Amino acid sequence: MKINFRFVEKLLTNFIKEELTKFHFEKALLGLSGGLDSSVTAFLCARAMGSKNVLALIMPYGESFKKDVSHAENVVKILGINAKTINIKPMIDAYFSKYPTNNKILKGNKMARERMSILYDFSSREKAMVIGTSNKTELLLGYGTIHGDMASGINPIGDLYKTQVRELGKHLGIPGEILNKTPSAGFWPGQTDEEEIGIDYEKIDQILIQMVDLRKQKKDLLSMGFSENILNKIIEMIKNSEFKRKLPPIPKISERTVGHDFLFPYDWGK
Amino acid sequence: MKINFRFVEKLLTNFIKEELTKFHFEKALLGLSGGLDSSVTAFLCARAMGSKNVLALIMPYGESFKKDVSHAENVVKILGINAKTINIKPMIDAYFSKYPTNNKILKGNKMARERMSILYDFSSREKAMVIGTSNKTELLLGYGTIHGDMASGINPIGDLYKTQVRELGKHLGIPGEILNKTPSAGFWPGQTDEEEIGIDYEKIDQILIQMVDLRKQKKDLLSMGFSENILNKIIEMIKNSEFKRKLPPIPKISERTVGHDFLFPYDWGK
Repeated sequence: MKINFRFVEKLLTNFIKEELTKFHFEKALLGLSGGLDSSVTAFLCARAMGSKNVLALIMPYGESFKKDVSHAENVVKILGINAKTINIKPMIDAYFSKYPTNNKILKGNKMARERMSILYDFSSREKAMVIGTSNKTELLLGYGTIHGDMASGINPIGDLYKTQVRELGKHLGIPGEILNKTPSAGFWPGQTDEEEIGIDYEKIDQILIQMVDLRKQKKDLLSMGFSENILNKIIEMIKNSEFKRKLPPIPKISERTVGHDFLFPYDWGK
Repeated sequence: MKINFRFVEKLLTNFIKEELTKFHFEKALLGLSGGLDSSVTAFLCARAMGSKNVLALIMPYGESFKKDVSHAENVVKILGINAKTINIKPMIDAYFSKYPTNNKILKGNKMARERMSILYDFSSREKAMVIGTSNKTELLLGYGTIHGDMASGINPIGDLYKTQVRELGKHLGIPGEILNKTPSAGFWPGQTDEEEIGIDYEKIDQILIQMVDLRKQKKDLLSMGFSENILNKIIEMIKNSEFKRKLPPIPKISERTVGHDFLFPYDWGK
C-alpha cells in the first residue's frame, strides 16, 4: 500500500504535462468539490502546468455544501489558480420540476452529469483539458457516475487507492480540513461514502490490493480473516460496475472495429 | 461495402438480446431523433426485445426540428413502441442565459449531453439499458459528442458505415422520408453533415473502408484517384478524435490498473 510520494508526484505531474502537450492543450480544467480527490488533483495540475494555467470550476447545487465550497475556495487561494463558481440549481431544477423524484441517487447522478457537461463546455471555451479526479478505489467499486464525475480527458490519480491519495495529499500540503474530512460523493448533505458502502476505506483498500493487485482469491482473503459478507459485497460492486470501466460494446462485423482492433495508426500521414 | 442484411439483422438483434439479458435488463431505451441511425436502432431493438419492451425518448429543443420529431413519431407508430417527448429547452436555456454564446457547436454539444443525462436518468427509473446509435463513419471521424450521443450501454450499429446503415434500413422497412433524408447532427436547423465535413458520405465510406478495414496507406488511395485534400481531411479527423474512442488514460503505478490490465475476473466468486 506504501507509495514513494516523491516519485509518484513526479510521475503524475510529468504525465499531466506530457498528455496536455501531446493534445495541444496549455491549460488544465477540473471540477473542484472541496473533497480530497479533486484537491489533490488541483495541486498536481498547478505543479505540472503552473497556477495560471489551471482553471477550477466550483459547481454547488444552490446553498448546499457551503463548507465544501469554502474548502474548495481555500484550495484556489493556496494555489493561486483561476476559479469560477457555477450554481447548477437552475438546470437541475428545470428538469426535476417536470420529472419529480424523491430518489436521491437519481438527483445526485443528474447533478454529476450536469457538472460534466459544464466542464466540457468550458473545455471548448477555454481550450483546456478536463482532468479527471477518480481514484482507484471508486473506479473499482464503481462508486462514481458514468458520464459524470468519471468522464475526463486524462485521469492522473486513477491508479491510487483512496488511502494512497490521502497520503499523497499530506505530502503535497493539502489543508488538514480536507485531509481529515469524511469522504462523501456529495449526493446529499450528510452522506458519507463509508456509511453508504458499509465498510471503511482502509479495509476496502486492504481487500482491493489483495484481490486486484496481488490477485488473491476469495478463499485466500477468508483465511486472512476478512469477513465473507464484506468480501461478497466488494466482489458484487466490482462485478456490477464493470460497464463503467469499459467502452460500450460494439458487435464485430467488419475487418477492423472501433473498440476491438482499431486504433489510429500513425503511419497514415505518410 | 456490401453486407448480408439478413445475417447482420440476426447478428445485431441477437447481440441486443444477449447483452440485455446478461446485464439483467428487460427493456431497451434510446433517444429517437427522427434520423436514420436512431430509427434503424429502434427497429433492431423492437425486433430483439418486442415492441412493448422498447422506450424511445424524443428530445427536441423547443419547436425546432418539427419535421424530425414527426419522423420519430412515425417510427414509434410503425413499431408500436413506448415513447415520451421531453423538451430540453428549459435546461439548456437555464445554462446559456447565464453563460451566453453564439457558438452553435457549443450549444449542440450541451444539448447532446443533456439528452444523454436524461436517457441515463430514465435508464435508472425504468430499469432499461441505454442503446447507442453511433455508426462506424461517425465514430471514426469523431463526428459525435463524447459523453453525449456517443454514450451508451451497448452500441449495435457501431461497426456499420453510414451507407451500410442506410442499406440495412431499407431491408428493415424504414420509411422513405427517413431513408432519403439528408444526414444531420441536428446541431442547428439546416445543418447537414456532408456540407459541414465537406465530403459526401458515399465517398467518405469508400475511403474509410480502404484505410481502416483494408489497411491501405495514403499513397495507395492517391493512386486510386482520391484527392489529397480529402484524404488529409479524413486522416486529421480520425487522428484528432482518437480520444473519443478511448477511456481516459490513467498513468500506471500499481500491479494492475483500470484501463490497462484489469478486467473483472469471473473466478473471484469462488
